[in-house]
Amino acid sequence: MINRLVDKIKETSAPVVVGLDPMLGYVPEHIKNEAYAQKGENLEGAAEAIWEFNKAIVDATYDLIPAVKPQIAMYEQFGIPGMIAFKKTVDYCKEKGLVVIGDIKRGDIGSTSEAYAVGHLGKVAVGSNSFYGFDEDFVTVNPYLGSDGVKPFIKVCNEEKKGIFVLVKTSNPSSGEFQDRLIDGKPLYEYVGEMVDKWGQETMGDSYSYVGAVVGATYPKMGEILRKVMPKAYILVPGYGAQGGKAADLAPYFNEDGLGAIVNSSRGIIAAYKQDKYAKFGPECFADASRQAVIDMIEDLRSNIKVLN
Amino acid sequence: MINRLVDKIKETSAPVVVGLDPMLGYVPEHIKNEAYAQKGENLEGAAEAIWEFNKAIVDATYDLIPAVKPQIAMYEQFGIPGMIAFKKTVDYCKEKGLVVIGDIKRGDIGSTSEAYAVGHLGKVAVGSNSFYGFDEDFVTVNPYLGSDGVKPFIKVCNEEKKGIFVLVKTSNPSSGEFQDRLIDGKPLYEYVGEMVDKWGQETMGDSYSYVGAVVGATYPKMGEILRKVMPKAYILVPGYGAQGGKAADLAPYFNEDGLGAIVNSSRGIIAAYKQDKYAKFGPECFADASRQAVIDMIEDLRSNIKVLN
Repeated sequence: MINRLVDKIKETSAPVVVGLDPMLGYVPEHIKNEAYAQKGENLEGAAEAIWEFNKAIVDATYDLIPAVKPQIAMYEQFGIPGMIAFKKTVDYCKEKGLVVIGDIKRGDIGSTSEAYAVGHLGKVAVGSNSFYGFDEDFVTVNPYLGSDGVKPFIKVCNEEKKGIFVLVKTSNPSSGEFQDRLIDGKPLYEYVGEMVDKWGQETMGDSYSYVGAVVGATYPKMGEILRKVMPKAYILVPGYGAQGGKAADLAPYFNEDGLGAIVNSSRGIIAAYKQDKYAKFGPECFADASRQAVIDMIEDLRSNIKVLN
Repeated sequence: MINRLVDKIKETSAPVVVGLDPMLGYVPEHIKNEAYAQKGENLEGAAEAIWEFNKAIVDATYDLIPAVKPQIAMYEQFGIPGMIAFKKTVDYCKEKGLVVIGDIKRGDIGSTSEAYAVGHLGKVAVGSNSFYGFDEDFVTVNPYLGSDGVKPFIKVCNEEKKGIFVLVKTSNPSSGEFQDRLIDGKPLYEYVGEMVDKWGQETMGDSYSYVGAVVGATYPKMGEILRKVMPKAYILVPGYGAQGGKAADLAPYFNEDGLGAIVNSSRGIIAAYKQDKYAKFGPECFADASRQAVIDMIEDLRSNIKVLN
């Protein structure tokens, strides 16, 4: 799947992932009203609204981008109906040829991580058959429990030819509280980065590993160091745009082959119609606003990051 | 809810939580066969089997124990049908008067943690109404992203009078890989413990905080230190029994009031009938074996931990 992701990035010339994190506040009134009329002003109605919202955005952008990253929390908050909308979104995006990165940030002790890995990337055995649960292409993984929390994911990645992105340095303001703590003069995130590199060596695709890393756009100096620590890890970069990360700062996340990083934008794309810049589209044409925002983001990355040209 | 947990622990004289982590391999054949006959040998059938298995164990043990801890991964691996079984389990345990600790180990950047908190502990707004998604009483939270990943959970805990257990030192063999790293001579888990104490001060129940901690039974010396670092945090202790933690080692996790810790056992209880010790019950009476295993666990804790008598 890492090979497929790299191919799709080359094909689209767009190291971009659209974060499908549909807060209900982003969904235009006409979509919500229709969903509530159909399913009720309840969890089912909310789930229907975010699904219709996602579908329109995917339809308007899938030809421009290699991948999407649905954030499962935004679905999970609506209980079972929300989880159904998550699954529908994953399936639909795959139908449209997109690589799907499930932003699930799971991680637990060995046997439990195995269940997550099986449920999100692999197949679970039931009697003499086996079945996919959620069936994303990649998932994000939290490393706090160490190797035996991560390796079950890698095992399933090998079986299924799928991948993970391990949280190394997250984009949020307080990520440094624990991640930046110095251990013998070296920050914790760098130790995690070294482990990502080590884990990744056992699971190489053609040019990059099945084991990638999350490094926030908001910490470009750390991105520069981590690029060197994990040369074969694809870096998933959240925090561009709405969270403050700028294209000009992202050059060090890429390798000289113009590859090695994929930049996520969520709010900046899916709620583009709410920005002054795209207000002309109006809520009715929110998906066209998202398309324009994707085009502008690709242009922003290409014009600021030399290695992409 | 922390007050209710403490009351229930006093009432049962049992600082015990039963981990409802139903691997399909633990479910007796007759339960699986009936479920597959009814729903098919597929995800729905598997979900039905684990739900019936849980229900029987809860029915056989709820009068002895204060709380249960369903591990969501074991449900999530069966996709949507599994999530429905999780929700049914949570609801049923609450009907039986049990405190429900959702072992979800979630944690993300602020706005995303808020969605998890709302979905698992609070209510999500849809139009002019609001709805509970999964509605556990407590959840476990991963601290790797720092304060702004944890505080949204605390906000919802304050609104709903519910609680969290933050992962501090986990029970698995490789937990030390990052958690034990020394920072100015002090291990990372101790820094996390200090933050748990700090976060907890803003959210006190009568005698303990809404903010508890996870500290594995397999590391009793660290448990002793962490007990002092976080005097007002209830400690959820996984790793007893099957993972190797012994009752005699758990005294330091408790305070002098005989409270302050609650010990989890999953496999040792729910799959008791598979142990030689309880083989006489046979698969047909697996739930009775679980009841006996709970009685024995309570006795083991009481006879080894002075403060409980």
